[in-house]
Amino acid sequence: MTQLAGDAALLGIRIVLVEPAGGLNVGSTARVMKNMGLSHLVLVNPRCDPLGDEARKMAVHAIDILETAIRVATIPEALQGCQRAIATTSRERSPGTPLEPPKIALPWLLECPAALIFGPEDRGLSNPELNYAQRFVQIPANPIYPSLNLAQSVAVCCYELYQRVSSISSPDQTINCEDQVSFSSPLAFSTQLTEASAPLEALEEYYQQLESVLLKIGYLYPHTAKSRMEKFRRLFNRANLSTTEVAMLRGIFTQVEWALRSS
Amino acid sequence: MTQLAGDAALLGIRIVLVEPAGGLNVGSTARVMKNMGLSHLVLVNPRCDPLGDEARKMAVHAIDILETAIRVATIPEALQGCQRAIATTSRERSPGTPLEPPKIALPWLLECPAALIFGPEDRGLSNPELNYAQRFVQIPANPIYPSLNLAQSVAVCCYELYQRVSSISSPDQTINCEDQVSFSSPLAFSTQLTEASAPLEALEEYYQQLESVLLKIGYLYPHTAKSRMEKFRRLFNRANLSTTEVAMLRGIFTQVEWALRSS
Repeated sequence: MTQLAGDAALLGIRIVLVEPAGGLNVGSTARVMKNMGLSHLVLVNPRCDPLGDEARKMAVHAIDILETAIRVATIPEALQGCQRAIATTSRERSPGTPLEPPKIALPWLLECPAALIFGPEDRGLSNPELNYAQRFVQIPANPIYPSLNLAQSVAVCCYELYQRVSSISSPDQTINCEDQVSFSSPLAFSTQLTEASAPLEALEEYYQQLESVLLKIGYLYPHTAKSRMEKFRRLFNRANLSTTEVAMLRGIFTQVEWALRSS
Repeated sequence: MTQLAGDAALLGIRIVLVEPAGGLNVGSTARVMKNMGLSHLVLVNPRCDPLGDEARKMAVHAIDILETAIRVATIPEALQGCQRAIATTSRERSPGTPLEPPKIALPWLLECPAALIFGPEDRGLSNPELNYAQRFVQIPANPIYPSLNLAQSVAVCCYELYQRVSSISSPDQTINCEDQVSFSSPLAFSTQLTEASAPLEALEEYYQQLESVLLKIGYLYPHTAKSRMEKFRRLFNRANLSTTEVAMLRGIFTQVEWALRSS
């Protein structure tokens, strides 16, 4: 298993802003990322100019983060090369997908290339967008007004990540997600990762194949496919599949297709 | 010693901004205060309009905090009625006045009427200004760029205060600064109820069906079925499947069998 030293662990985390509309927020995000030792910003379909006056004004000495930010069109593109993704939300999800506080969930991102995803200011991440992630963070807040500003949410999360890394005092001490926690859920994350998680794009290919085969065999209908696939995504995301396991699952459905053709 | 219940403890803390110059920062401060259960904002000689467009834009649903904010001319006026004050700084002080991280120092404010003081955006608090406080907080940050935006600093501190208060689960439990605890507790937020796990016999039936179908379609061979099925069992056991999810998965393989018969 890969183990990364503290600073490198922070540099392996990309902050993904989905459709940010406010240049001020993008600039503030860049600044607090640099404050907290992160540098990799990815913007999915930004609805503002990430190098405009507002963004520059708030970034102050973190213009370099804005300049090197990557723009992409979709969340899967933003996640290419990542093995883990956590999405932030203030919305309750269905049972079986627990929302975790930043302190508990975020250290899990420090072990391997990973992404932390934030939704648009006005609506947050939709369910289909959330389903690209394996775990879900909710920042504890007052129920009277629980919705934090986007850049403030980024600040709290980056602060927790930096604290976690800087609490590792010895310079050659490393972070290993397997032996940290105390995960809150009875789920996969607490146990037995014997192999690195599959890259998220491999998972995505599996989901595409699964949907296609399930439509073909009549298990899914076009009008219900989306909601049913969300349930399967949640189920398999939760299992934190290894590359081998994704290949095994894909093998099943390749074989199903073959069997249908030859029967 | 006075002990205050959680919410009251937060309401007893005033956030003091000394000579804030940015309306955006004042507005963002108001929003994150309300997010984190604080309501008492004091502005010392503000150099911006705390009810202007910029402040209102960032406050969103926390305009009430701006409207009830108190303006004063000096720090001592801002601290009237307080028993404790902590100042924030990113500057090293003389030996003997240690800088503490928010997590350690801030709970000390929860016991009695208290203030948390933030300096102006451009210069921070001067030494004479710092001397109105009894303790000093420095937010841990990357030495390359340790200076946080004012409103981001407020966010981090309010977040730590809210976390501290919300970690006290019982409604009539009180906070006592003398018995500060470690903050690492997973808090209430971590434990969302998951849907009940499927009974093990339902899982077993699924595994039997899976094996039978995988043999039928030629994915498994009799002599390797056992070891391969162990891998699938590990994968699905890890996902802690609910009854609904087991039914969904069984539905797939029932449909595969049906499709094979009718193709």
